[in-house]
Amino acid sequence: MPPKIASVASTKYDEHPDSSSRELFVEAAIDAFAETDLGPSDLDAVYVGNFMGDLIEDQGHMGALLADHVGAREAASIRIESACASGGATFRQAVHAVESGAADAVLAGGVEQMSIANIEHVTDALANAADDVYENEQGLTFPGIYALMARRYMHEFGARKEDLAAVSVKNHNNAVENPLAQFQKKLTVDDVLTSKPIATPLVLYDACPVSDGASVVIVVSEAFAAEHSLDTSARVLGTGQSSDAVALQDRATITRTPAAERAAEEAYDEADTAPEDIDVVEVHDCFTIAEILALEALGFYDRGEGTRGAVDGETALDGKLPVNTSGGLLGKGHPVGVTGIGQIVELTKQIDGRHPNQVEGVNAALAHNVGGSGASTTVTILGGE
Amino acid sequence: MPPKIASVASTKYDEHPDSSSRELFVEAAIDAFAETDLGPSDLDAVYVGNFMGDLIEDQGHMGALLADHVGAREAASIRIESACASGGATFRQAVHAVESGAADAVLAGGVEQMSIANIEHVTDALANAADDVYENEQGLTFPGIYALMARRYMHEFGARKEDLAAVSVKNHNNAVENPLAQFQKKLTVDDVLTSKPIATPLVLYDACPVSDGASVVIVVSEAFAAEHSLDTSARVLGTGQSSDAVALQDRATITRTPAAERAAEEAYDEADTAPEDIDVVEVHDCFTIAEILALEALGFYDRGEGTRGAVDGETALDGKLPVNTSGGLLGKGHPVGVTGIGQIVELTKQIDGRHPNQVEGVNAALAHNVGGSGASTTVTILGGE
Repeated sequence: MPPKIASVASTKYDEHPDSSSRELFVEAAIDAFAETDLGPSDLDAVYVGNFMGDLIEDQGHMGALLADHVGAREAASIRIESACASGGATFRQAVHAVESGAADAVLAGGVEQMSIANIEHVTDALANAADDVYENEQGLTFPGIYALMARRYMHEFGARKEDLAAVSVKNHNNAVENPLAQFQKKLTVDDVLTSKPIATPLVLYDACPVSDGASVVIVVSEAFAAEHSLDTSARVLGTGQSSDAVALQDRATITRTPAAERAAEEAYDEADTAPEDIDVVEVHDCFTIAEILALEALGFYDRGEGTRGAVDGETALDGKLPVNTSGGLLGKGHPVGVTGIGQIVELTKQIDGRHPNQVEGVNAALAHNVGGSGASTTVTILGGE
Repeated sequence: MPPKIASVASTKYDEHPDSSSRELFVEAAIDAFAETDLGPSDLDAVYVGNFMGDLIEDQGHMGALLADHVGAREAASIRIESACASGGATFRQAVHAVESGAADAVLAGGVEQMSIANIEHVTDALANAADDVYENEQGLTFPGIYALMARRYMHEFGARKEDLAAVSVKNHNNAVENPLAQFQKKLTVDDVLTSKPIATPLVLYDACPVSDGASVVIVVSEAFAAEHSLDTSARVLGTGQSSDAVALQDRATITRTPAAERAAEEAYDEADTAPEDIDVVEVHDCFTIAEILALEALGFYDRGEGTRGAVDGETALDGKLPVNTSGGLLGKGHPVGVTGIGQIVELTKQIDGRHPNQVEGVNAALAHNVGGSGASTTVTILGGE
């Protein structure tokens, strides 16, 4: 039987200058325990997604540290790092632990404290997700990498800056109703287009912010679920994960994300479902172009057609396939190692009918989490009872 | 059915100033493929144990990076960090992936490049395994942490510096015959006792060196094994993992390692075996005191009696329970995120009867890998056909 989700919780994503990673993680974990009869002693394992604790807080070994801080000192613990896909990868490892029989209950969480460092230090830390030899040392930063992808996409498919901006407008506007989101400010296409350039053709509102926060999901076996009162009816229908060259130059094209295509195929197969069965989606929109490429890789749009989602309103809250109802990384924020877990939190609420931007009749929900410029991708499909 | 091991390989542990992590990892992987009919395209996943690539080489995202560099660009990939237990934790995640049915073949590897940084930087990086707030900021380094444990152990049980030195002598002497070992130099107790103090009561030869290297193990399902020619008859009989407070001050006593006791109990249970069934052991002797505490936690000696192993020759190559026939961390070296994988490499060779310090009639072999001063511990039990 596929694992179930027992509870989910998340801090607000924001700048939290007075909170360390351990404080943010504990805040989310306490909230995850609150609505169930589960406590730390029920956990067989604590898996932590974290990208840059070593670089920002001089703190590694976060698996054991945070297991202890949530009260599960004896649990098996690890930290998983797949750059900005750390959260999605952590969730998938928790699913494997339950499916293998090694654990009945795993707390899969993510935490990141980024804003206490200055922006140059954060930019340097983020660059660890790229190939240090072939990208960073040549002067590429992540806005530059995604700008190359956007520029090429615009060239190949005739997309306009307005088409990218429509993604940002949709996601920022979704964030307004989400109390966990970093931004609560409506934007227009003109607001986006007149924001300052960061790496042509991308402007400020094409990019997600620097964020701190933590999210937690408790994954349990069917047998464990039967014995406890759970806070949600969500279950894991399927997961997929694939990789790609880290350096952009090593890919056959930079306007496709094949790791996402493969991860999606694996997840659809395992869930015995197809793109047309999915009711709501969270994708990794670190930059506006990333959402467009994701919608194509996940099978929702043909290649070169992904801009239609936001431009034509098809991925809006009242569209045929609402995407990033949370606000996405653009509007909700992007604490880098947390995001993949945060997506599961949002989709679980959609399945339970308690999301601030609730979509009607959600039976299947999909999350897409990316590390680097596409070198690590996880796809997760959740369903209800 | 328990997973099988298809192949193992390791670089020499040493200072490799001209090799990056990616070069070391590829060297080990090529060797692991060489003796089998397996190639990169057979791998469903590549899991990488690495502690300090972010800090030493400005390179995170090593899962995807190294999957690509070994030729398995499309595999699911993650990096796992549990400080110096990263290798053992990585191996255990690979076992879960196979047991869950998510993968038929996983390359579980470890890599570390430490020596290219100056020693102050390496000391700072290692300190990320401790609690930054409650240990590092108070001035504790790892030699200091283990010195506290050694001093207290000597006080409680009447152990002498000579008893600690006997561990170093045994392990250095074992390393002489191991071509993968960093040191090939016989030591006497007097050599150890007259080496320079590093944190009283510990002296230089009570401590492992700074090492670079990579080790790789390919873990496969029983069904996959039946279809391929494997290079080894080793199989995974059981694994265990547990955690503890990261900060030494938060433990009830510092002369026991309860996470190791729990991990061992879990592994013995799963393997349906007991300490007296084990024929050869690799323990995490980052400092001499650590081997003594490990032998007690694993059930081979009563509390306070662990010194007898080396002093009375019971853990020597010709003793009743040979321990660290590889040379251990003291003699073979300790590329921090690699060590737990390297232990599996050594024990697999013992099971196959092809170890440079071969023990006769090995049916069951145990590995013990520690992160920090005991906050993360994995125990693995391997058997033959």
